[in-house]
Amino acid sequence: MPDIQTHFSDWYQEVIAQAELADQGPVRGSMVIRPYGYAMWERIKEVLDRKFKDVGVQNAYFPLLIPQSFIQKEAKHIEGFSPELAVVTHAGGKKLEEPLVIRPTSETIVYYMFSKWIKSWRDLPMKVNQWANVVRWEMRTRPFLRTSEFLWQEGHTAHATKAEAEQVAREMHQLYTNFIEEYLAIPVVMGEKTQSERFAGADHTFTMEAMMQDGKALQMGTSHVLAQSFSEAFEVFFQDKDGIVKSPHCTSWGVTTRLIGAIIMVHGDERGLVMPPRIAPLQVAIVPIYRKQDDRDAVVSEALKLKEALHNAGVRVEVDVDDTKSPGAKFYHYEVRGVPVRIEIGPRDIEQQSAVVIGRVDGEKKNVPFNALVARVTGLLDDIQGQLLEGARNKMKTRWRHGDKLSTFGSLLKQENGFFQTGWCQRDECEKQLKEYQGTIRCLLEQQEHSVCFACDNKSKNDVVVAKAY
Amino acid sequence: MPDIQTHFSDWYQEVIAQAELADQGPVRGSMVIRPYGYAMWERIKEVLDRKFKDVGVQNAYFPLLIPQSFIQKEAKHIEGFSPELAVVTHAGGKKLEEPLVIRPTSETIVYYMFSKWIKSWRDLPMKVNQWANVVRWEMRTRPFLRTSEFLWQEGHTAHATKAEAEQVAREMHQLYTNFIEEYLAIPVVMGEKTQSERFAGADHTFTMEAMMQDGKALQMGTSHVLAQSFSEAFEVFFQDKDGIVKSPHCTSWGVTTRLIGAIIMVHGDERGLVMPPRIAPLQVAIVPIYRKQDDRDAVVSEALKLKEALHNAGVRVEVDVDDTKSPGAKFYHYEVRGVPVRIEIGPRDIEQQSAVVIGRVDGEKKNVPFNALVARVTGLLDDIQGQLLEGARNKMKTRWRHGDKLSTFGSLLKQENGFFQTGWCQRDECEKQLKEYQGTIRCLLEQQEHSVCFACDNKSKNDVVVAKAY
Repeated sequence: MPDIQTHFSDWYQEVIAQAELADQGPVRGSMVIRPYGYAMWERIKEVLDRKFKDVGVQNAYFPLLIPQSFIQKEAKHIEGFSPELAVVTHAGGKKLEEPLVIRPTSETIVYYMFSKWIKSWRDLPMKVNQWANVVRWEMRTRPFLRTSEFLWQEGHTAHATKAEAEQVAREMHQLYTNFIEEYLAIPVVMGEKTQSERFAGADHTFTMEAMMQDGKALQMGTSHVLAQSFSEAFEVFFQDKDGIVKSPHCTSWGVTTRLIGAIIMVHGDERGLVMPPRIAPLQVAIVPIYRKQDDRDAVVSEALKLKEALHNAGVRVEVDVDDTKSPGAKFYHYEVRGVPVRIEIGPRDIEQQSAVVIGRVDGEKKNVPFNALVARVTGLLDDIQGQLLEGARNKMKTRWRHGDKLSTFGSLLKQENGFFQTGWCQRDECEKQLKEYQGTIRCLLEQQEHSVCFACDNKSKNDVVVAKAY
Repeated sequence: MPDIQTHFSDWYQEVIAQAELADQGPVRGSMVIRPYGYAMWERIKEVLDRKFKDVGVQNAYFPLLIPQSFIQKEAKHIEGFSPELAVVTHAGGKKLEEPLVIRPTSETIVYYMFSKWIKSWRDLPMKVNQWANVVRWEMRTRPFLRTSEFLWQEGHTAHATKAEAEQVAREMHQLYTNFIEEYLAIPVVMGEKTQSERFAGADHTFTMEAMMQDGKALQMGTSHVLAQSFSEAFEVFFQDKDGIVKSPHCTSWGVTTRLIGAIIMVHGDERGLVMPPRIAPLQVAIVPIYRKQDDRDAVVSEALKLKEALHNAGVRVEVDVDDTKSPGAKFYHYEVRGVPVRIEIGPRDIEQQSAVVIGRVDGEKKNVPFNALVARVTGLLDDIQGQLLEGARNKMKTRWRHGDKLSTFGSLLKQENGFFQTGWCQRDECEKQLKEYQGTIRCLLEQQEHSVCFACDNKSKNDVVVAKAY
């Protein structure tokens, strides 16, 4: 495994390969998500989907292929997405009259359908979400972080008032943030994007920015206030309570399989992946240990009893009964996959009515009596979840610095990464100066501790976070 | 609503529109699955996914876009699919060196990946599945039954021996059949496809054929023994226990959103959709009834208590508290959506500590005391499930006929639809004669009750089922 400190990028690729999370596809920039990686996505889906439904969002499915003319209807949208489109020109053995683009995102087709479904204020709010694949033809790709096709969810809502749309965009922003902190154990900086970093066609884009272990930022997801730009372009109208015909105010919001990349890059260590227990597809791996075939039945049968007890307590647990692999090979297997807890059980343990419990992070071995096992393991899983979040918070604090002037903190940013809190006058030309240092404004902050812009002598209007980003 | 007996096809389209299951997309042949239709698919996914995992299948995700050359590697495969392909020729603003096709199915890309993952008999069996969208550019489309894009699951497995592959293909065939009968309440005919109706590239295709209410057949899903055709074409090799390098024997199997069309066409009636309780997204709709606003709180609060009790018993239940709609409008809403049970509750019911329970199919109203409600409703849901399966079985029996010679039963098939059991010599030229009567051999049967071929004087090798099909 390449060194995580000095060769972070190689380490990342190697963890993905060794933990069998994903593999390169045959087409440049494409990725196959392997079962263990996909199981992470299933857990993310399962939890988020429940949270969406709890706030009244319904799932639906919109077509993959969008008429090219749709993308052109919203001026900023086409400007933002046209360089990345994959275009279907032939189908069914014939050249198409109008080329179709593979959705890079679905606002255009969703609002086209909204124009059929929304007639009255009674039809509002409309809140739909889809779990889908999208294609964006990126130049530089990296597994999970940026691939030509990726999986995501995209929520789309329409509202009678601007205030309600903004409230929902903020509510989803908060929902994501809570999920990412509580389940992925990743702290984020919440804030609004600058105009130049906004979603193509949005009035406001709210983002969650997390710090990876190399000090770079990863945008974890976004929530957009689209206002009426798309609903007007697609002629969505409703008759309001006051009898007046209006266009609804809309939002859209999404997170992607990139969250898997974040888990790897925030929690991983020199031995591979480290999985936060609440999102881990497998929380506990039980490895039966025996030399003589005579012992096998007794050990495996006891292991299965432990599994049953843990399973009944809601733990995701498996017993590894594969006789073609040595215990050592199994230990490595679960370690590189970041399974939070391993339990070893052999003939002597059974005599003592106890098992050996090992946490993935600290590697400490503890003898735990059978009758205390469920409580100790569930407690340990909770502890690990808390420790991972705390650890990530501390790492972010350590690399969170304040900078007054780019001319002084710029070289530090360029060489050492990290997040820099500074002031900004909100002018594009100052923001552009960050390019030279490979930095961008990740988001605007609510706080205002810096009084002058990092680049010019104008007054700062907002504190911002500056960082290099994936 | 068009008459279900005389205008089945119009009735079908109208049920989809009124129950808000789906809508036409902007591109010809495309479909938007609306929330209620998608909720049916989510239920199907939820149940099948659990069943797949129980037999050791793992989910993964393979890329949407496949190099055109891949499709051409398996000779029969390209012959079968090339007329239906959608082709991406441009991406990222440039013409691609090699065009990419949108997956019509994923065998080619799956086996390409298998060639990287499978090295030894220890890697076998490999069993993966993906829930995905596929595109097949069909000429004549119909919502859920045949659309240019549809959702499905496709399972792909690789095995060391031919016998094991055949066993798994049969096991999945049986798993599907059980699911369709137990959850969708639809009886099916199980059997093998003839060579001309087989999946492009398969050695054997097992199918489930169901009879719609108009007497036509619908293929509900298929399970294929691919043998070594794809694994050889994609150079998948493993070293077996005996040290010899071999290509694995493979299977693939899938069901699609077409199952939703089957539910509509098997169970629907003149008032709309009829949902089998075990697959119904909503099993019970509680409608609070009050004239005076004074009564609202008490009625709604009692309705919520009933909901809570039913929910705790595992029933999918909602209370409709929408004050903008009359009770009558609500009744229609749940009726056309086929919600199995409706409960009405008003001030007088509360006085009597009872509620009115109405089954969707028979429409009978019964007063049920609060303290018996959970037991009665769960019992009723079970009864309805059983009655729907029984009813569908009876309908199929009624229209299941035996025919000796096509010259005599052919006109009946053409005019009245239905399933015809007959004998067949297994020659293509006899099978082709069915075209004239718009029929096809839906599948071969295990039974052998007919001794002579339906078309020639040769001995029959198998009984077959002949029908018109969607």
